Amino acid sequence: MTKKGSLFVVGIGPGEYEAMTLKAVRTLESCEVIVGYTVYVELIERHFPGRRFCTTPMRQETMRCRLAFEEAGLGQRVAVICSGDAGVYGMAGLVLELSREYPNVNVEIVPGVTAAMSGAALLGAPLMHDFAVISLSDLLTPWEKIEKRLRSAADADFVICLYNPASRKRADYLAKACEILLEYKSPDTVCGVVKCVGREGEERRIMRLGRLGAYEADMFTTVFIGSSQTAKIQESEGNGNGWPWMVTPRGYQI
Amino acid sequence: MTKKGSLFVVGIGPGEYEAMTLKAVRTLESCEVIVGYTVYVELIERHFPGRRFCTTPMRQETMRCRLAFEEAGLGQRVAVICSGDAGVYGMAGLVLELSREYPNVNVEIVPGVTAAMSGAALLGAPLMHDFAVISLSDLLTPWEKIEKRLRSAADADFVICLYNPASRKRADYLAKACEILLEYKSPDTVCGVVKCVGREGEERRIMRLGRLGAYEADMFTTVFIGSSQTAKIQESEGNGNGWPWMVTPRGYQI
Repeated sequence: MTKKGSLFVVGIGPGEYEAMTLKAVRTLESCEVIVGYTVYVELIERHFPGRRFCTTPMRQETMRCRLAFEEAGLGQRVAVICSGDAGVYGMAGLVLELSREYPNVNVEIVPGVTAAMSGAALLGAPLMHDFAVISLSDLLTPWEKIEKRLRSAADADFVICLYNPASRKRADYLAKACEILLEYKSPDTVCGVVKCVGREGEERRIMRLGRLGAYEADMFTTVFIGSSQTAKIQESEGNGNGWPWMVTPRGYQI
Repeated sequence: MTKKGSLFVVGIGPGEYEAMTLKAVRTLESCEVIVGYTVYVELIERHFPGRRFCTTPMRQETMRCRLAFEEAGLGQRVAVICSGDAGVYGMAGLVLELSREYPNVNVEIVPGVTAAMSGAALLGAPLMHDFAVISLSDLLTPWEKIEKRLRSAADADFVICLYNPASRKRADYLAKACEILLEYKSPDTVCGVVKCVGREGEERRIMRLGRLGAYEADMFTTVFIGSSQTAKIQESEGNGNGWPWMVTPRGYQI
């Protein structure tokens, strides 16, 4: 049997080095080649000197994964990096689908902290109870399906976390989603947005659902729409951060 | 102004030291006191020598958090640890609710890899598309609400991830949930279960929804129910692990 290569799909977390898991760091340190979308490679490359980095632009996902398999097929250890988690709107699925074509390459998925978790931590604790994660991008999903999921999640009073709430071509999608949600939920529902968690330009805001549609989201924004139980907790007098928290109570007796 | 203490709510990931983030490790190293549920403290204490550990049994969550605030109120750095993420069925919400009573303590949430992510990575890539996370525990949530969420998530074709699928007192809850889901979904729907990820006794299995109800889940099990698109990908001839993957395609052209 020929020598096998190894391909790791690694979730690097929101962007700062410290938000990576020890396993992600050690895996990348052990690889000869690291493949990724240009923006993510730029976030981490200085921490992994001596590795060969291959970048591909957005929307070249299949090419990026095939490139990684070909490098790994030469007997090398190769990593494909994803922001957040490898398996939440990341590259893990595509890599595993392609793995059937590259039987001499072992594949391993290394999970990371996805934006739902890193964004929630910055806002407080919005995901303490049942939640639904929905991407508003209709590049690969028909809008009707997205709309159906928004309606069902709102109707069942899930906390809702929106990925890809907007892009240049989809500037009004968050507003469209809010209109749908407002058919089910009060305009006073507590919502939160985070931008660029752990990166330059980090931003957090808490607002009511009635105002969320006017928020200028971009592709680095993650949006949290509370359940009927979600509350805004005002910082106490002495609280060092001086900001309010978004909290969905789990129901413990205090 | 009196000297402030700091309270960190830290998600330690599924259990193995390597699955912690660098930030979680550095935060725990910087703390004098680490508070947690006995099982989680036992998972990590050998990695943080010299710290004072305080353990409380299950269902003593409020007492556990108050204990942590009181230690922090003395001007110390204190961590409350949670398995998985701090904010997904963890302690972050309760700590922030209680923080109003302890204005001299700063609170920070340090996120981690929740079971949905670590379990998904072990199974393949089940969460590549929109998903809903639902806890089957009715200790703090009426069953009617849980049932409504199961029905809505199934009807909108979310991938569904179940936390707390069973316990000694709720041995038949997973079977009850499967019966409900089968009203909406094919018995051939691809499902996966993981147990004790990254710990002794780790287990992974892929099976059809029609058989999932008979699976003996426990409190360390996480369950994944595929969408209509989720597939079982057979390992290729040379695959080192020799196991199939559970994958929800995102829709990329291959």
